[in-house]
Amino acid sequence: MIFMADEKKEEVKTQHADKIFQDFKEHSVADFFKKNKQMLGLSGKIKTMTTIVHEFVTNSIDACEAAGILPDLEVKINELGSEHYEIIIQDNGPGIPKKNVGQALGKLLAGTKFHKLIQARGQQGIGASGAIMFAQMSTGKPSVVESGTNKEHYTVEVGIDTKNNEPKLGEMKDLTTAFKGTKIRCQFKDIVYRKGESSPMEYLRRTAIANPHCSIKFRDPLGETFEFHRASKDIPPLPIEVQPHPRGATIDELLSMAKYSQSRKTAGFLKNDFDRMGDKAIDEIQKMVEFDLNKDPKKLSWEEAEQIIKAFKKINFIAPRTDILRPIGEERLEKSLKKIVEPEYFAVITRKPAVYQGYPFQVEVAVLYGGKAGRDNEGTETGKAIEIMRFANLAPLLFESGGCAITKAANAVEWKRYGIKDPETAPLTVLVNLVSVHIPYTGAGKTAITDEEEVFEELKLALMDAGRKISHFLTGKRVAAEKEQKRKTFLKYATEVAIALSELTGEKKEMLEKKLHELVLKRLKLEEEMSDDELRELKATEKAAQKEAWNEDDDKEEE
Amino acid sequence: MIFMADEKKEEVKTQHADKIFQDFKEHSVADFFKKNKQMLGLSGKIKTMTTIVHEFVTNSIDACEAAGILPDLEVKINELGSEHYEIIIQDNGPGIPKKNVGQALGKLLAGTKFHKLIQARGQQGIGASGAIMFAQMSTGKPSVVESGTNKEHYTVEVGIDTKNNEPKLGEMKDLTTAFKGTKIRCQFKDIVYRKGESSPMEYLRRTAIANPHCSIKFRDPLGETFEFHRASKDIPPLPIEVQPHPRGATIDELLSMAKYSQSRKTAGFLKNDFDRMGDKAIDEIQKMVEFDLNKDPKKLSWEEAEQIIKAFKKINFIAPRTDILRPIGEERLEKSLKKIVEPEYFAVITRKPAVYQGYPFQVEVAVLYGGKAGRDNEGTETGKAIEIMRFANLAPLLFESGGCAITKAANAVEWKRYGIKDPETAPLTVLVNLVSVHIPYTGAGKTAITDEEEVFEELKLALMDAGRKISHFLTGKRVAAEKEQKRKTFLKYATEVAIALSELTGEKKEMLEKKLHELVLKRLKLEEEMSDDELRELKATEKAAQKEAWNEDDDKEEE
Repeated sequence: MIFMADEKKEEVKTQHADKIFQDFKEHSVADFFKKNKQMLGLSGKIKTMTTIVHEFVTNSIDACEAAGILPDLEVKINELGSEHYEIIIQDNGPGIPKKNVGQALGKLLAGTKFHKLIQARGQQGIGASGAIMFAQMSTGKPSVVESGTNKEHYTVEVGIDTKNNEPKLGEMKDLTTAFKGTKIRCQFKDIVYRKGESSPMEYLRRTAIANPHCSIKFRDPLGETFEFHRASKDIPPLPIEVQPHPRGATIDELLSMAKYSQSRKTAGFLKNDFDRMGDKAIDEIQKMVEFDLNKDPKKLSWEEAEQIIKAFKKINFIAPRTDILRPIGEERLEKSLKKIVEPEYFAVITRKPAVYQGYPFQVEVAVLYGGKAGRDNEGTETGKAIEIMRFANLAPLLFESGGCAITKAANAVEWKRYGIKDPETAPLTVLVNLVSVHIPYTGAGKTAITDEEEVFEELKLALMDAGRKISHFLTGKRVAAEKEQKRKTFLKYATEVAIALSELTGEKKEMLEKKLHELVLKRLKLEEEMSDDELRELKATEKAAQKEAWNEDDDKEEE
Repeated sequence: MIFMADEKKEEVKTQHADKIFQDFKEHSVADFFKKNKQMLGLSGKIKTMTTIVHEFVTNSIDACEAAGILPDLEVKINELGSEHYEIIIQDNGPGIPKKNVGQALGKLLAGTKFHKLIQARGQQGIGASGAIMFAQMSTGKPSVVESGTNKEHYTVEVGIDTKNNEPKLGEMKDLTTAFKGTKIRCQFKDIVYRKGESSPMEYLRRTAIANPHCSIKFRDPLGETFEFHRASKDIPPLPIEVQPHPRGATIDELLSMAKYSQSRKTAGFLKNDFDRMGDKAIDEIQKMVEFDLNKDPKKLSWEEAEQIIKAFKKINFIAPRTDILRPIGEERLEKSLKKIVEPEYFAVITRKPAVYQGYPFQVEVAVLYGGKAGRDNEGTETGKAIEIMRFANLAPLLFESGGCAITKAANAVEWKRYGIKDPETAPLTVLVNLVSVHIPYTGAGKTAITDEEEVFEELKLALMDAGRKISHFLTGKRVAAEKEQKRKTFLKYATEVAIALSELTGEKKEMLEKKLHELVLKRLKLEEEMSDDELRELKATEKAAQKEAWNEDDDKEEE
């Protein structure tokens, strides 16, 4: 089948703009994502199931943490028919007020997190509403929400009018039980439950690893139940909102912020609305700009804002606040991982926070070697291969690994340099967690991270740090093996020497052997305790003594 | 830095829902993409430049084709300062009516293509408006649009009020020159022009390859000009809108369509609003559903719609209309590619159209071997490696190859089977073009295609077809090489035999050599013309004759 022009040339007639633009229409963001649900991670029957669980689970944990509550989650998946499931997710969070429930779950691009610089798993106000939209698209049914706050306890059906991106709410019914938290019950068709690396089960397992303060109960469609027990009872601190860091702020952002500022002077606006901005910085900026910082910030021109941004780039600001970023932490990672993986070696690297485009971020990496570390790789010498577990703000990323900055950074590391001959046979698990007040996801589906230059660089440096740790461990392991070999060799010779000496001197063989063994072990221990310099000196002394002894022998012979 | 809970435990106080939801806000799709511009492909300074060119170029070509005009494009990039550029793109399209220009270029999710099932490069109404938004974000400046339709000629400045996703238009000024088409002039900061595989130049080169009916002039920031001449003067047919194909339609879609149908009976609605739906199909559906198809389509229930969709799946519909899909075509590909690549071997595979989720799509692949085919791969034997050129609806895809179904399909092909020992050293270019009325892009940035099962399968089958073609060519090449070797060997021996015979018989060496050469060539030609069976027979006869000759000799000796 070839291009048609040749056959039907006469059909091509020029169309005027008026005619073409007769069809001009606007559409809602809900209709956009309805037609492009793959952009929300809702493509592939198995992947869709896991994405739905992901969206509700991250929402629940975020809600609990925002309220200072230790999360108790229950996830149930019931099979209702062929490719037809019911998913029920319940949390013990703060609940959703009646007046917000429609917007929160029945409208895309609405939420409490988008406009804040805060470390949260969700950040767009799309995910859960998108899942509820997909429930409606595939079954025609609204989702049933039960929620209890400190004041209200109710149930309501939630759907979406996708044409207008507005919630469709059923009748609000008050509940008599004093249930606290949120329970969402949705039905979906055209999805499939499967065990394996892309399953809800694996998603929850990884959630438990990175969130040991969560308790998660799971019942799969076969009725099997699993429980991930809470490994840490410390309530995480409330997430802290941060102001934009001046390094990386853009002119456009500065002007938007200036428009809504409470301050009457630009100096005050900069000091109040930016992170790490002290009087000294204001003085420095005043010297670099051509206008008076007493100017009303609402009246700043593009050129003036540009001068400020240029000044920002020249000033050595303190790095962004560390305490607003909350990595999982070494202690928690150790608690949750060591028990599961039982590795020979375990280490955590927590890089210092850095900034991209004004957003603070931080990378932490846990490396586990040996034991159950690595993913299964049958048919190889070790039966294992390197496993990269990706997390963004403590939420597992299971899909699109090829397009993710974490994977790209891992591929960019020369593992050979660190004593790992072939990553494809290494019993190695590398957990990478990127935390930020704004994760630069590649898409609304939040499945992978863009390789923004600064983020990629930090990821790579963190993985290289991890490489060095492993290298150190593997070198130690090799040196220990060599020592053990040396000990064995010495002891073997000691036995032989003891036999020879016993024959020469008539002394008891056992006694001689014991003494020689003691001598060898003492000497090896001495070597171990000595510094390199001391050891060199000892050996030189011994050599000299030996030479002298030979000379003495020579002298004797000459006599 | 470890998790903070341990240090500041006392700070964690429970927050109630009311307090948390005080911060509940909605945001516009423009604000969403402004904060997540990486989702529009606007991340990375070099990539952003190419993405901008891509968005305007695809818009221009689409507009020309919708109007039945042979596209003449001019792209100019001027460097205004460090990381500061002006991009000017001009086409000879139908122009934009005054009343639509704001919405078309200053509002996201508005356009003529989103709601239609039509093969076009753009399909979302996001790209060009997103680029104009980024111009404003990075420079504070609106973009200058000049446009001429059959009725109006004007210029206007276009910006975006991102908070409300509404256009901000400057004063509309009429032009006295009768310019026809659209010219957009934008300024951008924080972008960089570089030559190379990700450059606007490479993007335009590939656009020219897949769109030989386009004439494209390009001036780079150094003032160098390039011209991609039109290789084909056939005007492509106007794009044809198609109705949804019943196979793959969903209940939700059917109900949405029913709501807006002009028909008063469901039977009429199905026949008028779906592709490939004849009276026979309607009769079959009536037998399979439990209600009368005379029912008003607006009153269809979810369950009734479900019965129809179930019936759809059981009926053997004709595949979707072929003539609405417009691959590049073998002839055009040959015209544009052979001249550039000068390959030893060239072939095009055009698969039959198929359907995913109700959307017809089609895959075409061009394979080029030898000559300038393949991408440079220094340090290898051939200096070349396999090159996969990706296209979606004739528009080049330069980024995110790892996450793209085309690349995944190419990686899933066992090239060894087709005589390509190592793709990393093969002088091979594979051009893959997916055409569809709805390309399942992974994100709004349209950089990669999701691996929807049906699409992935077709891509893989097309690439395997390509593999077979190459295999056939390579086998032919090997056989030809063997023949040539045989010919050379025979001729060499013929010369030697001629010398010996000349000495024995006294005949002239030159004459003998000439006769022997003729004999050899005749024999080889005979072999070539014979079928395998004939050849076997000939050889057997010859062998027998030879044996007899030996026997004769033996007889003589015995005498």
